[in-house]
Amino acid sequence: MNEQSLSRLSINQETIKQWSLPELAEGCVAAGIDKVGLWRAPVQAYGVERTAGLLADAGLSVTSLCRGGFFTALDPAERARALDDNRAALDEAAALSTDTLVLVSGGLPPGSRDLYGARERVAEALSELVPYAAERGVRLAIEPLHPMFASDRCVVSTLAQALDLAERFPADRVGVVVDTYHLWWDDQAPAQIARAGAGGRIHSFQLADWITPLPEGVLLGRGQLGDGSIDFRSFRTEAESAGFDGPIEVEIFNEALWARDGADVLAEVAERYLQHAC
Amino acid sequence: MNEQSLSRLSINQETIKQWSLPELAEGCVAAGIDKVGLWRAPVQAYGVERTAGLLADAGLSVTSLCRGGFFTALDPAERARALDDNRAALDEAAALSTDTLVLVSGGLPPGSRDLYGARERVAEALSELVPYAAERGVRLAIEPLHPMFASDRCVVSTLAQALDLAERFPADRVGVVVDTYHLWWDDQAPAQIARAGAGGRIHSFQLADWITPLPEGVLLGRGQLGDGSIDFRSFRTEAESAGFDGPIEVEIFNEALWARDGADVLAEVAERYLQHAC
Repeated sequence: MNEQSLSRLSINQETIKQWSLPELAEGCVAAGIDKVGLWRAPVQAYGVERTAGLLADAGLSVTSLCRGGFFTALDPAERARALDDNRAALDEAAALSTDTLVLVSGGLPPGSRDLYGARERVAEALSELVPYAAERGVRLAIEPLHPMFASDRCVVSTLAQALDLAERFPADRVGVVVDTYHLWWDDQAPAQIARAGAGGRIHSFQLADWITPLPEGVLLGRGQLGDGSIDFRSFRTEAESAGFDGPIEVEIFNEALWARDGADVLAEVAERYLQHAC
Repeated sequence: MNEQSLSRLSINQETIKQWSLPELAEGCVAAGIDKVGLWRAPVQAYGVERTAGLLADAGLSVTSLCRGGFFTALDPAERARALDDNRAALDEAAALSTDTLVLVSGGLPPGSRDLYGARERVAEALSELVPYAAERGVRLAIEPLHPMFASDRCVVSTLAQALDLAERFPADRVGVVVDTYHLWWDDQAPAQIARAGAGGRIHSFQLADWITPLPEGVLLGRGQLGDGSIDFRSFRTEAESAGFDGPIEVEIFNEALWARDGADVLAEVAERYLQHAC
């Protein structure tokens, strides 16, 4: 395996969910990969400080922590709880020495049909969190999710919408996640990637492929790189042309991958990455 | 039931798929509804001329025929077959005295990752079909489908893309379908509805609600009006502000509705239409 070409590859832990954090650390080191993306629940289960120590000992850096967000509630108490939870997520990100907290904005509150109002509540929440994030040296990265998640998970569906929100704040505090899975269908994405890069707002770049048929609930329908419809090399070229030279994180939620041997999945991800995204 | 307020309502036959064409005709007349939208397969099964006679006898007009399209194949023989099939669909539309053939553009050919090329093949097919459609007095209505269908069903995902294609041709020959289910998430939709209306290109206006969780394959996940996230009144206001005064067609694919008594479903559709879209 070409370790030089893997120098920008980061493995999001949900891609190999069957692995514990120690298995992830050992497996990545063995494969010549020195970056991982993490999720809060497994990190909390293992212990935040303990995870930080494990990864530091293995020489691994953390490219992002998933996830904060869920800012769209109408109930004031629920909104206050969401902000508290996001402050905790920022503390965790700082403890893990990652500079990026990924934000999934949240869907429509029950009974609401007001996408515009929900997006404004995302902006209000960002205003509240930016000073706290700045103190911890962590960037807030707004992730637009595919429009099929607009009602139940994320009212921010396009990179343009994410940038409209992010640009209300300084670029070193609020940026965006460019995730191929969510954006591949959008003919405006290339121009918006250029906009994001020019503004220094590509805080995370994630890869997963688009495959069909979508499973019930659609959340776990992401494909291994190369199995689907996405032209990763074009996405990477667009991001790099816009000045992005950061980590490239593979984040695939797929039960078939989770049922396999973790080392096999990691080897396949690295091979597909070299084949399709380099 | 307020028959005056139902004067613009059209029932797409797939909404009450459990009904035969005679049942649909009888049921609509009984409910004070004088317009239906049809699909080719059930019409062919009953007979095109026979359907035309049945509906004329019942005093029902046909607001649209679904569907032509599937223009994206790379294989020349497959493309020729698609054009032949669309000519047949135009003949059927003319025989049914509807002025509108709905087009679903088609997805990516196997192994292709080139959405842009696929959309150009849609434009080429339109060029081929426009003269034939003009001779029959039928308009070609490009339907943008939700981005979750971009790979396997329709590479035209937004109203802007549909209009970019349609505007290469005269407005009385090629227009668009504004279907709330496919467009509700898009913050550009209001401006594009204004563009479509100003150009006289809203050839069909269809309603279905967005509900979750999406079922496996996502095709049959549409919701009864009022059960989901879509603000129908805003859509209707936008279309009417843009000059649209045509039929409003309810097209819901939902197995739970198909399992019920057809007359009950029709009564519920009419009631929800009055409640949410008038």
